[in-house]
Amino acid sequence: MSNKAVLAYSGGLDTSYCLVNLTKDQGMEVHTVIVNTGGFSEEELKEIETRAYELGSSKHVTIDITDKYYNDCVRYLIYGNILKNNTYPLSVSAERMFQSIAIAQYAKDVDAEYIVHGSTGAGNDQIRFDVAFAVISPNSKIITPIRDEKLSRQQEVEYLQANGVNYSWEKAKYSINRGIWGTSVGGVETLTSNEALPEEAYPTQLSRTEPSVIEIEFEKGIPTALDGEKLSPVALIQKLNEIGGEYAIGRDIHVGDTILGIKGRVGFEAPAAYLLIKAHHLLEKHTLTRWQLLHKDSLSNWYGTLLHEAQYLDPVMRDVEAFLESSQNHVTGKVKVQLNPYHFSMIGIESPYDMMQSKVATYGEENEAWDSRDARGFIKIFGNQLKIVHSFD
Amino acid sequence: MSNKAVLAYSGGLDTSYCLVNLTKDQGMEVHTVIVNTGGFSEEELKEIETRAYELGSSKHVTIDITDKYYNDCVRYLIYGNILKNNTYPLSVSAERMFQSIAIAQYAKDVDAEYIVHGSTGAGNDQIRFDVAFAVISPNSKIITPIRDEKLSRQQEVEYLQANGVNYSWEKAKYSINRGIWGTSVGGVETLTSNEALPEEAYPTQLSRTEPSVIEIEFEKGIPTALDGEKLSPVALIQKLNEIGGEYAIGRDIHVGDTILGIKGRVGFEAPAAYLLIKAHHLLEKHTLTRWQLLHKDSLSNWYGTLLHEAQYLDPVMRDVEAFLESSQNHVTGKVKVQLNPYHFSMIGIESPYDMMQSKVATYGEENEAWDSRDARGFIKIFGNQLKIVHSFD
Amino acid sequence: MSNKAVLAYSGGLDTSYCLVNLTKDQGMEVHTVIVNTGGFSEEELKEIETRAYELGSSKHVTIDITDKYYNDCVRYLIYGNILKNNTYPLSVSAERMFQSIAIAQYAKDVDAEYIVHGSTGAGNDQIRFDVAFAVISPNSKIITPIRDEKLSRQQEVEYLQANGVNYSWEKAKYSINRGIWGTSVGGVETLTSNEALPEEAYPTQLSRTEPSVIEIEFEKGIPTALDGEKLSPVALIQKLNEIGGEYAIGRDIHVGDTILGIKGRVGFEAPAAYLLIKAHHLLEKHTLTRWQLLHKDSLSNWYGTLLHEAQYLDPVMRDVEAFLESSQNHVTGKVKVQLNPYHFSMIGIESPYDMMQSKVATYGEENEAWDSRDARGFIKIFGNQLKIVHSFD
Amino acid sequence: MSNKAVLAYSGGLDTSYCLVNLTKDQGMEVHTVIVNTGGFSEEELKEIETRAYELGSSKHVTIDITDKYYNDCVRYLIYGNILKNNTYPLSVSAERMFQSIAIAQYAKDVDAEYIVHGSTGAGNDQIRFDVAFAVISPNSKIITPIRDEKLSRQQEVEYLQANGVNYSWEKAKYSINRGIWGTSVGGVETLTSNEALPEEAYPTQLSRTEPSVIEIEFEKGIPTALDGEKLSPVALIQKLNEIGGEYAIGRDIHVGDTILGIKGRVGFEAPAAYLLIKAHHLLEKHTLTRWQLLHKDSLSNWYGTLLHEAQYLDPVMRDVEAFLESSQNHVTGKVKVQLNPYHFSMIGIESPYDMMQSKVATYGEENEAWDSRDARGFIKIFGNQLKIVHSFD
Repeated sequence: MSNKAVLAYSGGLDTSYCLVNLTKDQGMEVHTVIVNTGGFSEEELKEIETRAYELGSSKHVTIDITDKYYNDCVRYLIYGNILKNNTYPLSVSAERMFQSIAIAQYAKDVDAEYIVHGSTGAGNDQIRFDVAFAVISPNSKIITPIRDEKLSRQQEVEYLQANGVNYSWEKAKYSINRGIWGTSVGGVETLTSNEALPEEAYPTQLSRTEPSVIEIEFEKGIPTALDGEKLSPVALIQKLNEIGGEYAIGRDIHVGDTILGIKGRVGFEAPAAYLLIKAHHLLEKHTLTRWQLLHKDSLSNWYGTLLHEAQYLDPVMRDVEAFLESSQNHVTGKVKVQLNPYHFSMIGIESPYDMMQSKVATYGEENEAWDSRDARGFIKIFGNQLKIVHSFD
Repeated sequence: MSNKAVLAYSGGLDTSYCLVNLTKDQGMEVHTVIVNTGGFSEEELKEIETRAYELGSSKHVTIDITDKYYNDCVRYLIYGNILKNNTYPLSVSAERMFQSIAIAQYAKDVDAEYIVHGSTGAGNDQIRFDVAFAVISPNSKIITPIRDEKLSRQQEVEYLQANGVNYSWEKAKYSINRGIWGTSVGGVETLTSNEALPEEAYPTQLSRTEPSVIEIEFEKGIPTALDGEKLSPVALIQKLNEIGGEYAIGRDIHVGDTILGIKGRVGFEAPAAYLLIKAHHLLEKHTLTRWQLLHKDSLSNWYGTLLHEAQYLDPVMRDVEAFLESSQNHVTGKVKVQLNPYHFSMIGIESPYDMMQSKVATYGEENEAWDSRDARGFIKIFGNQLKIVHSFD
Repeated sequence: MSNKAVLAYSGGLDTSYCLVNLTKDQGMEVHTVIVNTGGFSEEELKEIETRAYELGSSKHVTIDITDKYYNDCVRYLIYGNILKNNTYPLSVSAERMFQSIAIAQYAKDVDAEYIVHGSTGAGNDQIRFDVAFAVISPNSKIITPIRDEKLSRQQEVEYLQANGVNYSWEKAKYSINRGIWGTSVGGVETLTSNEALPEEAYPTQLSRTEPSVIEIEFEKGIPTALDGEKLSPVALIQKLNEIGGEYAIGRDIHVGDTILGIKGRVGFEAPAAYLLIKAHHLLEKHTLTRWQLLHKDSLSNWYGTLLHEAQYLDPVMRDVEAFLESSQNHVTGKVKVQLNPYHFSMIGIESPYDMMQSKVATYGEENEAWDSRDARGFIKIFGNQLKIVHSFD
Repeated sequence: MSNKAVLAYSGGLDTSYCLVNLTKDQGMEVHTVIVNTGGFSEEELKEIETRAYELGSSKHVTIDITDKYYNDCVRYLIYGNILKNNTYPLSVSAERMFQSIAIAQYAKDVDAEYIVHGSTGAGNDQIRFDVAFAVISPNSKIITPIRDEKLSRQQEVEYLQANGVNYSWEKAKYSINRGIWGTSVGGVETLTSNEALPEEAYPTQLSRTEPSVIEIEFEKGIPTALDGEKLSPVALIQKLNEIGGEYAIGRDIHVGDTILGIKGRVGFEAPAAYLLIKAHHLLEKHTLTRWQLLHKDSLSNWYGTLLHEAQYLDPVMRDVEAFLESSQNHVTGKVKVQLNPYHFSMIGIESPYDMMQSKVATYGEENEAWDSRDARGFIKIFGNQLKIVHSFD
């Protein structure tokens, strides 16, 4: 029987402990895998690779799924204008799910006996990892040293030192997780219910104060150009994160239900997610019918909830995606957005499908679509059921 | 047969035309009624009364329903965190409905032969009036001179002058409708899809720039105190409109579907609505279960939609209200909000029902509620259905 | 200006009146069109054609859209297991919509100046006609003599006799509308709330009493074979109507809301619709995930409601169809159904995607997917939120 | 420390094993509790009590919660017309939840150190027990010998014999669970996907073949009289079970998702549930508005799902109940039902709130509520949005 293990490796203390422990103490052949969804720079990835080999990785693999992540997930989050509890763009929820799936797929491809992650037993990430692993690579046994052994940081550091690993493992004041769809920020304040994160907790600081205007262009719901420049969606998102970040836009604190049934709180900055979702939503208000808006809203809310709760692989998600894709047929046009320090506002849209500028009829104006006699008849019949039900009063 | 008519009178050109026309040309005994939902000052109401009598009103009545409006409607808009299309607090939609009902009730009480409003055939208000009139006072015949005769402003002014009425009827650059739940602003820009309202279009201008913090207290979803001072909900809303107005908070432009099936756009400023809804929502995120949040969201969205669409009198609205009221049982606590020019942010909450600070379990921490073995079992079973459905892949 | 009119012609008294009136009195060139959705026999269609020419039709056209009707509509009614108010297969609602669209398309193709239907102002059909006509052929003026002139049957008969038309126009005791998705039956009893239709009101009478078993096969939600014989969906539906009709299966009375806001009641017999929907639903219970079943249910309910309410052309219907189509990926297998006089029951299914017979885990049995320790952990965490919220009791 | 244990005792092999094991081997003071929700006769309860004392119970308690079960649960299942997956009245799901809660309450009242049930680790019941126990009596430790020890029937019998217990424990061919809301039937066929239960598997056999008519009366959704005789809801349900049982009405097989994520199948007979739900639903179709029907449907579906999934104690259930109760205001009247062997059908209703017989307007008839000109205006405006959106085609 093989002793090949695939480890979801981040270069941090926990997964470094796993790597050393599995190779040295348990004699496994460990493949370390890191999955980039747009949050890591070349340098960071290089550093992680170096460290992986230093700590005993048999093979270190960097999988870049940024485009796939956009296509299979972020795209639908935009179509659906999805902000969990009206706040959180699901930055980490979505990203971790996709990382888990990519690692599971790698484990399956290399026919790994074991598949390993470094999450604890307290949070959501373990569920995303375990579920993706079990579904995609059902023959790999899941190993979770951190969850099972419950070592303190101190114990892990000592173990590593005893094994000749002498990196410095200072704990940052704020734990940060970066991805193209947002950066999460956890710290002592997010453990309370009544304190905000201090300004310095946010990795991106305000650096621009004069207001400016940007124009985002969409084709069938897909962001395709910024200020007239055609960009791939991923490049456009990155650009918007830069510009929005300068204005410190898109920050908030999310309070929500974990899959484990308890409440959690996390700060984030997600300039591109906020700008794109709000701009896209405005364009939809002009181009979708009342029924589309109502049903999209309700389905999208569920899409976000199920994505957050590690149900991305449920076929219902493909069904909702089919709905969302179909709904974008007319969501084409340009949206102007005003940027200010810490906040932004929508200026307006232009679209060939703008239902507000239709020749058929225009709001508040006399028009040829109907006259006052029609309106009277409309309202008379429109009120029928209310008249009937109140006739019993 | 009586010739008593009840006219929804605002003091403006259209309803003044109606008043003169009905009394002089049609010899009716006209009762003019104005319904205050918190948007009119004593002086304004006095002026309108004076004018009504000058123009021929047999009896002018001012009905103040501000408390009733809060109790029967605004309260549920807060419980439901209702912003139509995630933007509009339904300021005018809700207010006009309640004004229509109060006028219809008055018409029924005085056994009026006719009931009259001054709306055109192009917008939503005519529907709210007609429906409320027909349902509440089915024996009164509805008369709508403005809708039917389609006179120009000029023609109306000339008619009034010919009848000895010589007020000045200048058209304001922006049409404004004030109520406690928000002030709407329409103008040349809101007829376009791509222009924002200029700063000066908003009746309340920024007058305070240094940030400050306020604390709003809720008891079972009802706002009861501001910065420690107990206030009636209506007084609290008015106070928040003042404070928030100084910061120019709660402005936006709503784009939405009219009941007539076309799209419309309207600006608004609604500081109290925004502050209360966002603060209340945050408190709910801490105190409601996942299922409550999910179902409240969906039902509330419908409540707002149906209220907007003149369906307030449908019994389903009472059913949703019963749901919403029941859901507020634990929504008690204090919310701190940071105010800045043009924007605000939530600092945090304190509540005896804060599920995040429960002794049962705390996010991200080792706890007694479950151990790593439990987590493993949980996830294994949690993933069952996905494992089964993907076993066919 | 052209005087070409397209008339939705059924051969009955009302549309015969229209035909004569438009040609003789108004000098129009009338194209009579009848649209078959599977409810007319060759003979009936021939007879209608003969009559049309006798009464003055310039051109009579029979459009058979049975396959299109299945593909664009009935298919989704099966995918969604749609029975309005849990009762009505939407037989007439769906069929009339498709007839209206086909007629409107014809009018547009021949560039008709006028487009004519014979519905009254009291029911749903006028709305389906008017809406489809206005949307598809916006340049054709809609004419509705029956609705506008409100003639009695007697007056129509006399007018026709005066114009040399001497058919006998006896009113049937029950008004019947036949289509592949069901036959509606209206009569004196359906105008009451408390009387059932008598046995003889149903066009198809019980003719078989010994029970039997049939097997329906589906591929991705599409019915493809009956008792092992491959059939086109339309042929299969027709066959099921025959067999089910012999058992007098699929009868009921629907009570529902008309688009005009009042309640209506109509009897129907729809053997194929009932057999297919119930069989298909059972197959789905075995092959779809919990989330698919929940969301399909809710969306399908809306699809049926909007179809009934003449909203078939709203793009949201295309979005729901995309969802439904996606959901059918695993809905493949055979369903056995027991037929008895007046009722039927499901025996069971076989499917390669039967989640109940998965090797991963089986209900109520000890299995390898989890052990008792896992179950304990699962339930402990599963109950977290309830434990927290009740800790405040 | 106390050694008092409360055991959910049914008198069957599993819980008898638990009782002997806990008293003899573990020296506990065991209180045996059985909770009647209407499924046990006096004799059965007496027999179970006798056996409990013979096997070592310190105190045997029979708690009858039939009325409470109706009031707190069955009532809402009727209000909501709830059939899970359009089939299953949730007979066992609901009953077991209420039994679990009653036992937990007893354990809390007597301050039990332990609380014990005899369910295995494979099904839903363990979850209902564990969750109710942990929420209601959080200080009692949960013990589950059957789940943990996984003994075979043979081993249990031998253990009991070794302890001097010599009852005969033959396994019935079909496992039956009786309650007022239905009797479930499991057997070898329900483990397959393609076999129906044989006639003899159902405890109640057809005993009446001549058709008859019954009349059920409701007041605000509550069943209050049968054939003119006033009855308590519980007595009425029992009576309907008798009558319906004679006709073998209300049988089916439910296929559904367990909380553990796998599919299960169970037969049932539930005459009263079927008759009441279908009769109540018909009355609602006549007395509720379109919007009430739509939203009730969706919320009720969720209520059933969450009840099935052991979430009865989630406060959202109270919120939905408030909605449902409010919705019943007009659900008053009489429903006539035709009973036949194996099937039944609705004849019709009478209600003071029948919206179909309103004087305001009647279906398909000319009336004073609107004329053809009104209808034309209505449809014109009704079609506005479709005209606009298709103007882009």
